[in-house]
Amino acid sequence: MQTIDLVIEANWVIPVVPANTVLKDHAIAINQGKIVALTPSAEINSRFQAKQRLLLDKHILMPGLINAHGHIAMSLLRGYGDDLPLQRWLEECIWPAETKYVDEQFVEVGAELAIAEMIRSGATCFSDMYFFPNQTAKVARQSQIRCQIAFPVLEFPSSWAADADSYISKGLALYDDYRAQPLINICFGPHAPYTVSDKTFKRIAPLAIELQAGIQVHLHETANEINQSMKDYGCRPLQRLANLGILTPQTQCVHMTQVNHEDIDLLTDNGCHVVHCPESNLKLASGFCPVTKLTDAGVNVAIGTDSCASNNNLDLFGELHTASLLAKAVAEDAAALNSHQTLAMATINGARALNIDEQVGSLEVGKAADIIAIAVDDLEQTPLYDPASALVYTHNGHRVTHSWVQGKPLMSDRQLLTINKEEIMLKVDFWQKKLRNKK
Amino acid sequence: MQTIDLVIEANWVIPVVPANTVLKDHAIAINQGKIVALTPSAEINSRFQAKQRLLLDKHILMPGLINAHGHIAMSLLRGYGDDLPLQRWLEECIWPAETKYVDEQFVEVGAELAIAEMIRSGATCFSDMYFFPNQTAKVARQSQIRCQIAFPVLEFPSSWAADADSYISKGLALYDDYRAQPLINICFGPHAPYTVSDKTFKRIAPLAIELQAGIQVHLHETANEINQSMKDYGCRPLQRLANLGILTPQTQCVHMTQVNHEDIDLLTDNGCHVVHCPESNLKLASGFCPVTKLTDAGVNVAIGTDSCASNNNLDLFGELHTASLLAKAVAEDAAALNSHQTLAMATINGARALNIDEQVGSLEVGKAADIIAIAVDDLEQTPLYDPASALVYTHNGHRVTHSWVQGKPLMSDRQLLTINKEEIMLKVDFWQKKLRNKK
Repeated sequence: MQTIDLVIEANWVIPVVPANTVLKDHAIAINQGKIVALTPSAEINSRFQAKQRLLLDKHILMPGLINAHGHIAMSLLRGYGDDLPLQRWLEECIWPAETKYVDEQFVEVGAELAIAEMIRSGATCFSDMYFFPNQTAKVARQSQIRCQIAFPVLEFPSSWAADADSYISKGLALYDDYRAQPLINICFGPHAPYTVSDKTFKRIAPLAIELQAGIQVHLHETANEINQSMKDYGCRPLQRLANLGILTPQTQCVHMTQVNHEDIDLLTDNGCHVVHCPESNLKLASGFCPVTKLTDAGVNVAIGTDSCASNNNLDLFGELHTASLLAKAVAEDAAALNSHQTLAMATINGARALNIDEQVGSLEVGKAADIIAIAVDDLEQTPLYDPASALVYTHNGHRVTHSWVQGKPLMSDRQLLTINKEEIMLKVDFWQKKLRNKK
Repeated sequence: MQTIDLVIEANWVIPVVPANTVLKDHAIAINQGKIVALTPSAEINSRFQAKQRLLLDKHILMPGLINAHGHIAMSLLRGYGDDLPLQRWLEECIWPAETKYVDEQFVEVGAELAIAEMIRSGATCFSDMYFFPNQTAKVARQSQIRCQIAFPVLEFPSSWAADADSYISKGLALYDDYRAQPLINICFGPHAPYTVSDKTFKRIAPLAIELQAGIQVHLHETANEINQSMKDYGCRPLQRLANLGILTPQTQCVHMTQVNHEDIDLLTDNGCHVVHCPESNLKLASGFCPVTKLTDAGVNVAIGTDSCASNNNLDLFGELHTASLLAKAVAEDAAALNSHQTLAMATINGARALNIDEQVGSLEVGKAADIIAIAVDDLEQTPLYDPASALVYTHNGHRVTHSWVQGKPLMSDRQLLTINKEEIMLKVDFWQKKLRNKK
């Protein structure tokens, strides 16, 4: 009998791979950070001697969620200037606040707040694109969550870097710093077609291939972006990026609310991924991403919350709820994007987009033990005919009880284990006062 | 100094009327079920001697929410057959289950479950339309929540009534039974244009006027409904109801995803109300209600969850979140349906639709003390720059802590006071087993 680190027994397990599967009364065996078995609970004790045993008999176990797009430090700007038209929101609220306040401390505190909220709502991995990515990476490392840090690249200066060259050189230094960290992937974050020049995209393309690093870019977020590109470049942004060599199977196209047949061909021909951010797209009135049209064509679609400033939360279960409902209405089909497909968006699809699907995204033997448990025993989850439906259609983000990354617990019975919640809230309070006074 | 029943001090009060108002450090004085004062907390003690005093210093106080459309007993069918195309969902799941199982006990238990969930997520008033409305009214009375019961009228038989005449006569008997109950209004619920004949609508119209009773009807829910009406009646359903005398200031038109200029004229000319059910419209792929187009034209728009079977929760705060985000995208304007307007939909607009706005819907002196408190002191509500934004854009349905109807507490620190939660959950468990076994 093998001695292992941990056995978790649960009422239900949704492994995501194989698809459409709900396992009743199953257990997961974990050793040295990896899943070594997934079997009926009745069999687990005869196979393993576990150092620790956990019975979660009101719970669903599933892979930890992957929040594939965000600007996490902006959590300090949660609800800062809501309900303004997009341009006024950016020009009168967000950009002035960023210019004035964003520094290493802002990013450190904002990242702590965001990571705490993400762990509490079921994410075990996130992608970030923001200034001072070194701070975000540092906080992620301390909290032991998994992440992709897409260092930003822009043509205009910020408090972090002066021009495209300095963004890239600072980003590459970060890439070097984190080369040996298995939980943290550094990749390229050219901000958007309208903020990055052809010259800079052309510099990034071969570098990304050479380093086998991902590229995450805001793309086709609004109709206005398309119109401007047609005027300035004579083609749609996606075609322009294709011409510049940016579209590869390592490319993550965020938003894509504007999609025609040629766009779909470009995405499938180049194996690019789409990151859908439904709540941000709605809140900023950007448009509707045609999710089922993309998935029907074979495009891998992941999901992200975007920043807390345009959401205003980082609860990926809430995002899944919105994504599933919205996809049905957009596709005019109540059967579109069913609950299992929706859960896949936030797990295995996210892992594929971030190129970590050999390690995470499903509960399979050999994969890292990135796992969450959700308690579904309260009045709001009753009756429960279908656990996958309960996860997608009933708000349960606040019912996530446990979280593990590589078998290491980040949360137990809703207690954060790698983050001091009270300390963060005091720091956030300090920043709130600072930001509010100057508003 | 006046002796009164209760003083509640809170960090913030959002009275809804006057609009766009957030009062910091205010207190509400309540006596004999009514609001007698709303003043700065510092002044309240010099004016009133309160028998009970409550300090809610991490909380927002606001009017209790009004869930203006639902079929509450269907909570027993939460997640029953999700992700099917609409016709298959109805024909293979919902209708057979209803035919087989819906009886007095089903409705009693389903109503208990729903009312418990609604109180826990901030509703102090709901509208219902379902079979055995006598059972729903009975449970509502026991739980001391406020409600409108629209007794259903259909041409086809159910386990409750045999034909339109018997639906109406049973409904009128219910109306008589509850005439003296101030918290319960009985009104007409002709199901929809495609399930109710001209003859029956013509019978209802004068009866509703005579009794000064409301009429709630599903209307323009899908494009298919419009097309069928054009074929069968030569006009759109709303025009047909206008011709039949059904459209009055007492008429509540539920759904209205299909709206043209003539429809808006009919709604404004007749003073009808619209009840928007965004999550149900999305989940059943029915369409998008043009909320801002309606409100810009002066139509009063309330909000409802619809049944738990097409939602799958009764959390009106979640519905407000969806409504606000969706309205922005549909109107292509990030400033559309701001957080105060959204809160008004679920409070004063709901009260107007149900014709109870002289009694409830805002925190004003002289109105009934139908009040809720929401705790906003946890990590997910931090930072908090704007309480109205926090209520609409950050999921807080599960953070409602207190609830009063007519000054009588229904929930205190999340403990239900008029409903036995554990007992309900046992009964629901019994029904879940019964329904699942036969599925």
